[in-house]
Amino acid sequence: MPAKPNSEPAEALPPSIGEYLIQRLQDHGIADCFGIPGDYILSFYAMLEQSPINAIGCTREDCAGFAADAYARVNGMGALCVTYCVGGLSVCNSIAGAYAEKSPVVMITGSPGLRERIHNPLLHHMVRNFRTQYDVFEKLTVAGTELDDPQIAFREIDRVLAACQRYKRPVYIEIPRDMVHVRPEARPLYSNPIPPSDPRALDEAVEEAAARIEKARQPVLLLGVEIHRFGLQDLAIKLAEQAKIPIAATMLGKGVVAETHPLYMGLYEGGIGREEITRYVEASDCVVMLGTFMTDINLGIYTAELDIGDCIYATSEQLRIRHHHYRDVRLEDFMRRLVERGIKRTRPQPPAPTEWNREPFQLEPPAAVTITRLMRRIDEQLGDGTIVIADVGDALFASTELTTHNRTEFLAPAYYTSMGFAVPAALGAQTARPDARVLAIVGDGAFQMTGMELSTIVRRKLPVVVIVLNNGGYGTERLLHPGEFKFNDIHSWQYDKLPTVLNGGTGYLVRTEGEFDAALDAAWNDRSGPSILHVILDPSDKSRALAKLTEMMSKTVVQQ
Amino acid sequence: MPAKPNSEPAEALPPSIGEYLIQRLQDHGIADCFGIPGDYILSFYAMLEQSPINAIGCTREDCAGFAADAYARVNGMGALCVTYCVGGLSVCNSIAGAYAEKSPVVMITGSPGLRERIHNPLLHHMVRNFRTQYDVFEKLTVAGTELDDPQIAFREIDRVLAACQRYKRPVYIEIPRDMVHVRPEARPLYSNPIPPSDPRALDEAVEEAAARIEKARQPVLLLGVEIHRFGLQDLAIKLAEQAKIPIAATMLGKGVVAETHPLYMGLYEGGIGREEITRYVEASDCVVMLGTFMTDINLGIYTAELDIGDCIYATSEQLRIRHHHYRDVRLEDFMRRLVERGIKRTRPQPPAPTEWNREPFQLEPPAAVTITRLMRRIDEQLGDGTIVIADVGDALFASTELTTHNRTEFLAPAYYTSMGFAVPAALGAQTARPDARVLAIVGDGAFQMTGMELSTIVRRKLPVVVIVLNNGGYGTERLLHPGEFKFNDIHSWQYDKLPTVLNGGTGYLVRTEGEFDAALDAAWNDRSGPSILHVILDPSDKSRALAKLTEMMSKTVVQQ
Repeated sequence: MPAKPNSEPAEALPPSIGEYLIQRLQDHGIADCFGIPGDYILSFYAMLEQSPINAIGCTREDCAGFAADAYARVNGMGALCVTYCVGGLSVCNSIAGAYAEKSPVVMITGSPGLRERIHNPLLHHMVRNFRTQYDVFEKLTVAGTELDDPQIAFREIDRVLAACQRYKRPVYIEIPRDMVHVRPEARPLYSNPIPPSDPRALDEAVEEAAARIEKARQPVLLLGVEIHRFGLQDLAIKLAEQAKIPIAATMLGKGVVAETHPLYMGLYEGGIGREEITRYVEASDCVVMLGTFMTDINLGIYTAELDIGDCIYATSEQLRIRHHHYRDVRLEDFMRRLVERGIKRTRPQPPAPTEWNREPFQLEPPAAVTITRLMRRIDEQLGDGTIVIADVGDALFASTELTTHNRTEFLAPAYYTSMGFAVPAALGAQTARPDARVLAIVGDGAFQMTGMELSTIVRRKLPVVVIVLNNGGYGTERLLHPGEFKFNDIHSWQYDKLPTVLNGGTGYLVRTEGEFDAALDAAWNDRSGPSILHVILDPSDKSRALAKLTEMMSKTVVQQ
Repeated sequence: MPAKPNSEPAEALPPSIGEYLIQRLQDHGIADCFGIPGDYILSFYAMLEQSPINAIGCTREDCAGFAADAYARVNGMGALCVTYCVGGLSVCNSIAGAYAEKSPVVMITGSPGLRERIHNPLLHHMVRNFRTQYDVFEKLTVAGTELDDPQIAFREIDRVLAACQRYKRPVYIEIPRDMVHVRPEARPLYSNPIPPSDPRALDEAVEEAAARIEKARQPVLLLGVEIHRFGLQDLAIKLAEQAKIPIAATMLGKGVVAETHPLYMGLYEGGIGREEITRYVEASDCVVMLGTFMTDINLGIYTAELDIGDCIYATSEQLRIRHHHYRDVRLEDFMRRLVERGIKRTRPQPPAPTEWNREPFQLEPPAAVTITRLMRRIDEQLGDGTIVIADVGDALFASTELTTHNRTEFLAPAYYTSMGFAVPAALGAQTARPDARVLAIVGDGAFQMTGMELSTIVRRKLPVVVIVLNNGGYGTERLLHPGEFKFNDIHSWQYDKLPTVLNGGTGYLVRTEGEFDAALDAAWNDRSGPSILHVILDPSDKSRALAKLTEMMSKTVVQQ
């Protein structure tokens, strides 16, 4: 059992480095850790298995990385545990995605024991030298440490975990295997200082922002994913309600507030989004962007026409009003103080569109399934406590038209856009929220990358519903680079037969709306294990958003 | 069609950067390129598809990396083509393995167009900045370039490909997507200088080495994998035959010479190998190590007792005789000159063991399959032109006891030991050698990582034979860290049912020797597509080599 250095009496045995790390992970709310054992991490794995933390084995390390990422997005922090190089270098892409999209994942990796390294022998799993893996992850994480010095190991663990919590980015902890059981003499000094905002900069920024919003003719809140990461949803809603300002969200921020909220308009995606929302946002004379990433896909591949001279742009990294910047103003402080000050608007806000008021969906049982109508049908099924996970491609673009409810969460790699996120992420999300209904929507190309992680979902009897959209290839790329190229076609699998191979779960083959309706109902009512719905689509079928997006992107790609 | 700048008349249109790269890949003998398209590499992919190079799509990028690695080992050079970050960072582990084990893989990756990067926007797939991927692969490749300057792009391509050829290590070529079609004004100057050996150092080294071998009581040649990589097999055999010196090989070098050669003794693996070979090698007063990696697993986890004071150690990177070093002596020159000089031994060589003279295998049809007897049965099946690929774990250790014949090749990640190599490597090897019989031997844990690449093998109707050794988990690790740990158990798949999911191939469920015999015969006679033999093993079954190895390694792991 890991020691509890801050609560146990002083005469207790001080914790080992491994025990201290396990305790600190729990202090940060981590109850599960994804990964694969390997010889340089076996001692720590054995310790983990005997601790309260649940070690969840995956089929592949990169899948464990995606699972930890989704777990982190849902839970606040997640962890991943892998062996040296063959394990660690297999998660570069997952960790890079967590970095790009601000997901707080703690990557723990073993390494050769310090005593083994004497005379620099060529130990197995080594690439160039003992430092290679560390050097690689220095590029992909916000903080890292190698626990090779017992005197500072506890402080290093605290420092790195604090960075993970503060910046919502992945961090790297490497334990030489002969350090796991070492007990440093010093008691740990646990501290997690968060530097406060500069009070005078904060005062001035809040006053300027409030005055601008009050004076504006048509202010809009544009919410991004950081509102979710930093747990600022309630503040954002208070701000909107207090000032009666309509809300839009970016694609990456989809679901940060309930889309059924009366002030919610829908997603703002520049030229590829719904016209009435694009028009309203771009006609605003004061767009308040909170926690938003200014990325290409997020902003409709730069079809957005936002005049930055009219924006208030606040994130965890910067605060800009019009063309000037405030330093050392924390996003949370800024939002809280705005709410505390109170925003009193005297001018009436022009009426804003909403998109969540839809006509009920009318099933056409014999009709072939199309992606647009499939999403309409799924929309009927979503409720409080559903977590929707969209993979890259039209799985993502089409599902931006889903409606998230009060506690519906929407997870997608909408900026880094790494294919293969959804199925392992479903494992992570369902682990973090055992009572949630987790729905993963994934294209066939992405499923072939990581879909076999369904194995772990079967093994753990998690009631995840996976919808595989089979259009026979990389559909988005077909549109990006038109022409008769074979390289976008992929091999056909009978996805619905996977339960036979995996000894569990239920498969459905779906061609018509009626079949989809029945399969989705059956899957929703089955909590005995996962369901996989293999949906056959016409290779040329596409959502409205994808059609618009590829039209814009293909201009960029083809010109080059 | 790519231009041929060195053979076409001067008035022909000069090649574009993309065309030049494709031509140079062909000049280096590359006829196939593995990968997955993505938007930053689509223009180059389109060019590739219209070129004589065959673009082979895989299910996952890391599998494409393993396939390219195996292709490179068999063919002399291989290539991999992926998109930016989500593609590139997914092959870190495959490229790291190629680096560690000296496999010449050319990694080609797209990146955002230079014109898109103005004002540093957050383009999708980006991690930290535009340079992140380049910085990561600087740690994992022997040379790299970003083709962002047309004036030097051709020379950069030549320089990097020459480094790949010379060092037999992976290289990195990044093409911003708006550079693919750019036609530099300058004609390329193609040059590939290989610095010659220092003639006087070479003379002295050859004379000293020859004299030592001539005077020795019991010299031995210990051959490593570089003999294969640099194509020096014939020289090595000439040297042995001329001086009548017995030959041993390291695990990574298994199969560099035909194991049925009369002078071949077997693998030298220190304390874990066959005792008579260990005894003979360690009693030698002049071990001539040629192209050998001094790695832990290769040398039996440092159970080797070789007195370096008696060794001649020559690799592509260094030449050491006893305790002194020669600089600038190329391995090939050293070996060729030794053969030219002629080694005249007057003392009789003490009789050396051979291990290839075995009793014929007697099938016991109703007996449960064991790993040791399975290998004996496979041994009967191997012939000229078989390529055996062993994955990590007992698939590797047990198959070191197979006998490679004249042109039998043996591929394994025996140093870097990354699980999941075998199935994608089988795709690469069979592509490089369409007429070969490719046999992949893989444990269940490793199969779950990358085995679905069988999809591409089915799609291309390649007659690969895959043997899945199912012992219900990470068998080697169970032995490394004894105890009742659950983390080494994995979920059970019905591997033999995969052909149903993949729409092709034939599956066999094997429990007894009789079933294995019949399935292997049937698979061998079936060239219509892949066969997958799902072999049930007792979880505690292990080969002689693994039993010895884990006994030694567990001392190291448990102590720590």
